Amino acid sequence: MAILVMKFGGTSVADLDCIHNAALKVKREVDAGWQVAVVVSAMSGETNRLVKLVRDVSTLYDAREYDAIVASGEQVTSGLMALTLQSLGVPARSWQGWQMPMRTDSSHGAARIEGIDTDAMLAKFDEGLHAVCAGFQGVSSDNRIATLGRGGSDTSAVALAAALGAERCDIYTDVDGVYTTDPRLEPDARKIDRIAFEEMLELASQGAKVLQTRSVELAMRYKVPLQVRSSFSDVPGTIVCDEEEIVESNVVTGVAFQREEAKITLQNVSDRPGIAAAIFGPLADANVNVDMIVQNISDDGRTDMTFTVGADDFERAKATIEAARDDIGYEGLVADRDVAKVSVVGIGMRSHTGVAQRMFAALAEEGVNIQVITTSEIKVSVLVQRKYMELAVRSLHAAFGLAEA
Amino acid sequence: MAILVMKFGGTSVADLDCIHNAALKVKREVDAGWQVAVVVSAMSGETNRLVKLVRDVSTLYDAREYDAIVASGEQVTSGLMALTLQSLGVPARSWQGWQMPMRTDSSHGAARIEGIDTDAMLAKFDEGLHAVCAGFQGVSSDNRIATLGRGGSDTSAVALAAALGAERCDIYTDVDGVYTTDPRLEPDARKIDRIAFEEMLELASQGAKVLQTRSVELAMRYKVPLQVRSSFSDVPGTIVCDEEEIVESNVVTGVAFQREEAKITLQNVSDRPGIAAAIFGPLADANVNVDMIVQNISDDGRTDMTFTVGADDFERAKATIEAARDDIGYEGLVADRDVAKVSVVGIGMRSHTGVAQRMFAALAEEGVNIQVITTSEIKVSVLVQRKYMELAVRSLHAAFGLAEA
Repeated sequence: MAILVMKFGGTSVADLDCIHNAALKVKREVDAGWQVAVVVSAMSGETNRLVKLVRDVSTLYDAREYDAIVASGEQVTSGLMALTLQSLGVPARSWQGWQMPMRTDSSHGAARIEGIDTDAMLAKFDEGLHAVCAGFQGVSSDNRIATLGRGGSDTSAVALAAALGAERCDIYTDVDGVYTTDPRLEPDARKIDRIAFEEMLELASQGAKVLQTRSVELAMRYKVPLQVRSSFSDVPGTIVCDEEEIVESNVVTGVAFQREEAKITLQNVSDRPGIAAAIFGPLADANVNVDMIVQNISDDGRTDMTFTVGADDFERAKATIEAARDDIGYEGLVADRDVAKVSVVGIGMRSHTGVAQRMFAALAEEGVNIQVITTSEIKVSVLVQRKYMELAVRSLHAAFGLAEA
Repeated sequence: MAILVMKFGGTSVADLDCIHNAALKVKREVDAGWQVAVVVSAMSGETNRLVKLVRDVSTLYDAREYDAIVASGEQVTSGLMALTLQSLGVPARSWQGWQMPMRTDSSHGAARIEGIDTDAMLAKFDEGLHAVCAGFQGVSSDNRIATLGRGGSDTSAVALAAALGAERCDIYTDVDGVYTTDPRLEPDARKIDRIAFEEMLELASQGAKVLQTRSVELAMRYKVPLQVRSSFSDVPGTIVCDEEEIVESNVVTGVAFQREEAKITLQNVSDRPGIAAAIFGPLADANVNVDMIVQNISDDGRTDMTFTVGADDFERAKATIEAARDDIGYEGLVADRDVAKVSVVGIGMRSHTGVAQRMFAALAEEGVNIQVITTSEIKVSVLVQRKYMELAVRSLHAAFGLAEA
């Protein structure tokens, strides 16, 4: 029997009514002939409640105990979902991470999945039992509960789908799919029917926070098609799949943005081998996530180096650079905390030229000044003053005709 | 290093302040040189919240899912207690039932402990780690969480103490020990310093609800001394131990009572072999707990049979007997729902005569009529009209000099 993994996030299992509603969706798929493995998050608010208890005890807490405490949220939902399915006539049982087991490394609080033993679950499938798995958690090699970090239930679901050889992994959430851009910002944004993994990765990491990045990477690696769809309606969602399964790909699929960026420019840096390592090594050590990096052309053996970081990381980045000033050897540090990043993404760019030019023209027409440009194979990103961000997103959405199907 | 098991019930870990307070008690014992295994219940109210979630989904719920859901309460407390101990400088880690493992049978919701593998915990003791165990739960042979039933944390603690070869098991609760009778009823009631397991069993099952009966049975079987003491004071509690460890035993140790009893008399029952089985077989099948049973002398081959049940069971008992009327063959059924049972308990009765006579005399002096009498080796119980119960308890407490140490 073909296996379908269905994942329900916190807002989709917020209370017993929501769980009932989600269970009806599971029943519909079971009735359609699927062997289903459900993956559930904690009821919304529950993880926060548990995390607060931990933090109230100790700020420097033992991550293994944090995991034991916080993982109880998914444990409760898995049992309630199994009971609800049973009450609807769907034979089901709950599976905790340690019961499968879903084996992880020992990075408690942000563990990585090392493997999933599916034998026990497959044997129960043969007995006609559908599975309800507690997301977000596995068991480490020393038999302790290990959580995958916030949003880890998406990753649980995709990893389980890969291990079970599932046909598809449906991610039920509070939006009905992936949009060409954020509909709160551009009312003409259109739901995308099919999007390639690579595009989804660029969109997700650029701020279209629908799917956890790690889960998309995992799905891409194991070629597990995902469907992002709504828990609160019955319309089809967005299929995230291998690009070969997308017959007609758009040149540009979507416009992403990151509102809270900060830019740091180091002036008159010596243009010598190893200078990049001298700057970005300390930043990496300080866990600062550097985003865009541009280096101006060299003039008399000196250059300017500009990079961006998330606004949250700005103070740490600045302090790190200033502490390393002697090693780096720069003349001045200019910072701008008032910038945002806007990107256009599309696998069609690989075979179509002129995307960057069209982008720059559209922005120029609106008088939006571009501060930094970076490009990848399927993405062009620009840094603009934050007050122009919405305007930039809307003009690009129009320029690439994204409102039309 | 000598091992001490310390068990904290729900009111003793009701919130983070209570957990902190309990952790200080653990630290005191650790500082005194004990290797400690703590057993914790769910934070008070939490089990009820989880049970309500289950019942709201389904009244005929799958007990395995009930267990997965409800056991999360103790899981959270165990993590919080471990964190709190760490913050006080006591090295500790949490243990879930499946991690030890504490193996149980498959009677989910009321499972019995089959054995505890202590190797992993003892190895961690050697590393200097104290243990915090989630009470009330184990793991069944098919790797599912199984709970021991309400109050099961006492049983967890005693079973763990037996398996670890602990010197003692301290049960921290909201009373500071076992009293000669309920102090709410007799202000002169005195805390007992030492009481024998057998006496504790009689007192517990008679209504002095301090310790779960199963935990006392287990402690008696494995000769694990218990101490019942308060979480909210530092005074020593009551030691429950083997009678050989009690040097000077009282003839009577305490007065117990059961307020809500009901009496049923079957009149003119045929006095033939098998008549008791005809009456009490159907009651056992209907899960009615029969307490006292008396049979009058036979007159012309007919007799009266009287028995008592808890008031909760009365309607079910009556209906069961009436349904079996043809098989039993009785003339009339007389019921009295307005009775209470009062008992005096003491291992000294074995070697001292005259206890029953002193009891009857004390009651006669107060004009309390005795309806039914039963005796065991260490207990004499009488059934009286409910309105006389308090008077009977107080007069017996005085007659046996229980207020004096």
